[in-house]
Amino acid sequence: MLAMSTLETFPNRHPGRDYTIEITCPEFTSLCPKTGQPDFATIRISYVPDRLCVELKSLKLYLFEFRDQGIFYEHVTNVILDDLVAAVKPRSLSVEGAFNVRGGISTVVRATYARQRRQRR
Amino acid sequence: MLAMSTLETFPNRHPGRDYTIEITCPEFTSLCPKTGQPDFATIRISYVPDRLCVELKSLKLYLFEFRDQGIFYEHVTNVILDDLVAAVKPRSLSVEGAFNVRGGISTVVRATYARQRRQRR
Amino acid sequence: MLAMSTLETFPNRHPGRDYTIEITCPEFTSLCPKTGQPDFATIRISYVPDRLCVELKSLKLYLFEFRDQGIFYEHVTNVILDDLVAAVKPRSLSVEGAFNVRGGISTVVRATYARQRRQRR
Amino acid sequence: MLAMSTLETFPNRHPGRDYTIEITCPEFTSLCPKTGQPDFATIRISYVPDRLCVELKSLKLYLFEFRDQGIFYEHVTNVILDDLVAAVKPRSLSVEGAFNVRGGISTVVRATYARQRRQRR
Amino acid sequence: MLAMSTLETFPNRHPGRDYTIEITCPEFTSLCPKTGQPDFATIRISYVPDRLCVELKSLKLYLFEFRDQGIFYEHVTNVILDDLVAAVKPRSLSVEGAFNVRGGISTVVRATYARQRRQRR
Amino acid sequence: MLAMSTLETFPNRHPGRDYTIEITCPEFTSLCPKTGQPDFATIRISYVPDRLCVELKSLKLYLFEFRDQGIFYEHVTNVILDDLVAAVKPRSLSVEGAFNVRGGISTVVRATYARQRRQRR
Amino acid sequence: MLAMSTLETFPNRHPGRDYTIEITCPEFTSLCPKTGQPDFATIRISYVPDRLCVELKSLKLYLFEFRDQGIFYEHVTNVILDDLVAAVKPRSLSVEGAFNVRGGISTVVRATYARQRRQRR
Amino acid sequence: MLAMSTLETFPNRHPGRDYTIEITCPEFTSLCPKTGQPDFATIRISYVPDRLCVELKSLKLYLFEFRDQGIFYEHVTNVILDDLVAAVKPRSLSVEGAFNVRGGISTVVRATYARQRRQRR
Amino acid sequence: MLAMSTLETFPNRHPGRDYTIEITCPEFTSLCPKTGQPDFATIRISYVPDRLCVELKSLKLYLFEFRDQGIFYEHVTNVILDDLVAAVKPRSLSVEGAFNVRGGISTVVRATYARQRRQRR
Amino acid sequence: MLAMSTLETFPNRHPGRDYTIEITCPEFTSLCPKTGQPDFATIRISYVPDRLCVELKSLKLYLFEFRDQGIFYEHVTNVILDDLVAAVKPRSLSVEGAFNVRGGISTVVRATYARQRRQRR
Repeated sequence: MLAMSTLETFPNRHPGRDYTIEITCPEFTSLCPKTGQPDFATIRISYVPDRLCVELKSLKLYLFEFRDQGIFYEHVTNVILDDLVAAVKPRSLSVEGAFNVRGGISTVVRATYARQRRQRR
Repeated sequence: MLAMSTLETFPNRHPGRDYTIEITCPEFTSLCPKTGQPDFATIRISYVPDRLCVELKSLKLYLFEFRDQGIFYEHVTNVILDDLVAAVKPRSLSVEGAFNVRGGISTVVRATYARQRRQRR
Repeated sequence: MLAMSTLETFPNRHPGRDYTIEITCPEFTSLCPKTGQPDFATIRISYVPDRLCVELKSLKLYLFEFRDQGIFYEHVTNVILDDLVAAVKPRSLSVEGAFNVRGGISTVVRATYARQRRQRR
Repeated sequence: MLAMSTLETFPNRHPGRDYTIEITCPEFTSLCPKTGQPDFATIRISYVPDRLCVELKSLKLYLFEFRDQGIFYEHVTNVILDDLVAAVKPRSLSVEGAFNVRGGISTVVRATYARQRRQRR
Repeated sequence: MLAMSTLETFPNRHPGRDYTIEITCPEFTSLCPKTGQPDFATIRISYVPDRLCVELKSLKLYLFEFRDQGIFYEHVTNVILDDLVAAVKPRSLSVEGAFNVRGGISTVVRATYARQRRQRR
Repeated sequence: MLAMSTLETFPNRHPGRDYTIEITCPEFTSLCPKTGQPDFATIRISYVPDRLCVELKSLKLYLFEFRDQGIFYEHVTNVILDDLVAAVKPRSLSVEGAFNVRGGISTVVRATYARQRRQRR
Repeated sequence: MLAMSTLETFPNRHPGRDYTIEITCPEFTSLCPKTGQPDFATIRISYVPDRLCVELKSLKLYLFEFRDQGIFYEHVTNVILDDLVAAVKPRSLSVEGAFNVRGGISTVVRATYARQRRQRR
Repeated sequence: MLAMSTLETFPNRHPGRDYTIEITCPEFTSLCPKTGQPDFATIRISYVPDRLCVELKSLKLYLFEFRDQGIFYEHVTNVILDDLVAAVKPRSLSVEGAFNVRGGISTVVRATYARQRRQRR
Repeated sequence: MLAMSTLETFPNRHPGRDYTIEITCPEFTSLCPKTGQPDFATIRISYVPDRLCVELKSLKLYLFEFRDQGIFYEHVTNVILDDLVAAVKPRSLSVEGAFNVRGGISTVVRATYARQRRQRR
Repeated sequence: MLAMSTLETFPNRHPGRDYTIEITCPEFTSLCPKTGQPDFATIRISYVPDRLCVELKSLKLYLFEFRDQGIFYEHVTNVILDDLVAAVKPRSLSVEGAFNVRGGISTVVRATYARQRRQRR
């Protein structure tokens, strides 16, 4: 958990219904831990809220915190997933990181969290 | 229920068949409740009518009523769903609100209503 | 049934196989029954033939017959479905009417017919 | 079977695995049997090979043989399916013929062959 | 196995979660074994890692090794699949080779590996 | 001049400046004078107003009047140009009619009027 | 001049060079003066600054002031041009208003200001 | 001149105005004179008529006559130009032949005729 | 001149010919000097080299140096122009900065340098 | 001149007319002289022939000869221009090399040859 402290939430006004919130940020940038050069990605987040929704401005600031961090594609996608699950406690949540071409190769990482049945309160 | 009084309906001439009506309005605008600045969205509605269909001109006027209201993305999508379900009593209905980019982030909210089995008839 | 007399058919040469014929007509026009103003739509038809296929030139003339009729979006899509099912007696058939934007709103109506199991043969 | 003699095959080097080969030919042309005027289509073929793969140059020549034949959309799509199944003996195979607009109407025909279970071996 | 020696891996930091890594290389080129002329393709790889992830620079060099090899479309797609499965030991992995048009025909080959249940540790 | 009586105008509030008004109507339809079958086109009008601007609703009704007329592509484009020049007396005006594909051929007709220097008052 | 008071400027740091600043606002909305219904447009502004540049946030607020005004397409485009010229005193400036389809017709208005030679100080 | 006999014309009703007729035929096919294999192209014709316009159905039949001819890209484009100029005697005329990819290379040939000043009568 | 020290050059091997080199970097990011929030842009550079060409890796590092600088759109575009002109001494050079949407508004800045005639030697 | 020996020509059958031949090859690949890694580009050639046209198969083989050469973007584009001018002796000829993204930067090089007036004969 790198930066979760900045993620803020607000109460979901429609908890009786399973609905989806999909957020797209095409302006994500971090650093390559090997070369120190910048990486660029589009981050897509989709979740079904339970009691809480993520506040968008705090999400923007949270993603901004990766700007100076050296972190691999696979790891950053999973870290964002973990941080959001911890902060928002959603019914389900998925993160996709679509990274720009490097060396003629582009990469997309997709990870998903689904709350287990019994946990559903 | 904010504005339902304006939603008008007409009888479905083909109630014996489950079919789908999909309506797209790319000209939705409301106000941000925090900043008072305008928000813009495309609203997509898809439903299977039962006895009633929504009259399109009244739907346009209904969506127009949000122009001066301060309302959050998540809430307005669910409110439109609730108002349409109350007015049209459809077999099923979904609403998608695709909101323009703010602070480098765009948001899509999707909510769905499905009449429960026993209710059918 | 408004215009079925013009729909002609020819024998399906491959009745032993379920296959699909998809027809797209982006040049459909009728009149709005309220205002008398022209409406424009793309009509998409998809069916699995049984003994008969629809002859394309007669289909074009059939769709042309709506040019001077005042008829609502929901109704015309279902009428085309009913007329084609009556004329072609297909294993299944669906019609989609995608109507041009009016008052900032565009509408798509989709209706489907599927022959019941016991009827098959 | 109109032209199967020209279809050549070569042994599948990976018969232990179900995998898919998809072939697109946007340069198919035949004649309308009614008017003698040329028809144009994109032919898409997708199959899971068993012991044999179709040789691409012979496939190109095979499709070229329709250039001077008068043949209907529905029929030619099914004929190509039958000829390829006879020549390649695949686990499954589908053919799609997407024909250019005529009289304001475009047509897509899709047919599929799947080997029956007991036949497998 | 033509070139596997060059494929390097690094440990998966999130083995407790099934997630997907999708890699696209639009710059693949090999030679036609019949004519010696160059072939061009886009290679797409998608996998669910187990203990290992493939290192991207080594993957780039691995794909580069085909530049001077004469190899058929069907074969090269399956060879890349086999080499990656041997090196990365993934939970599942698929390879798609989308080859540029030759003689008016373009070809896509898709092959998939899925680890068998009991193998799952 | 077929239908000019319906074209209405309103005073240009900015006659001191040469500026351009471009109007696109993708819903134009007339009849083929040979076959009686419907033709479809997108009409684009661009003009520099002098004292008058064309009123858009009357323009829509004017274009609607061609719905039942048999008229050739070349002629209708020039007729619309002549009618608009007579009604609006613009500094310059051009009309483009882009007609849908017939017999595998699509046609665009473009005609332009420019007021002669000395006429400029 | 409707709303110029809100337009703020800042000094151009590169007045020795003619360069272009192009601003696109796809979220413009005003009211139709006839029907009171909302109109929607994309406003594109392009100018060569002299001593001053327009401050973007004040421009956004300026365009926001039209939200409740009834104003015609031709007029609003020219008004925005006049207000910007008065506030920014540019070497040249053009405004394009691209208005959404109404009654099957879309409209683009383009107006341009160019400072006269002798005025150039 | 290969096939000019089939090109028919009709009188231009608006000879007092220079206007443009642009015709696009995406369904042109001929044979490669070296290999006998089919070539495919989109032919675009643009002309300013003088006394005559080309009749579209005869143009379609004219282009159809190349279906069985072996002819090079450069030559066929110039031949179509010469035949149309001879038949239509236009003020100006251009032909573009955009040929499909062969051996990884696509080719566009563009040729233009402009009547000389003194010839204009 | 903020960062010019990092720009490296190599000799132009074809100085006898005016030719153009166009470079596109969609991964530019700097900071807003007011808010400290990140800005994102695509930078396009086009120049006619004289004795020198810009080395691409050093250009990438040069653009990377703006990552932590607070700088306005108009200024950064002109600064990149000045730095490149100083380093490469081109016959002509232009820079376009296309900045992502902020507050519903996107901005493109374009600046051009052209060496004066007499300077050419 | 690296490889001109392979470029073959054939006589231009229409030397009395200035017309254009445009050739696009999206399958060009060479090596980076620094890293030895492959570069990929689309090469576009456009020329007005005089007495000779370039034979397309020989052009393909000519471009294929760069596959194993280490050569910079700027140089290869000018070399192709020089070789084609020497072989085809055209009235004018231009070459564009559009190179794939490397390090987040893509590059297009454009060079043009125009025969001098007096040389024409």
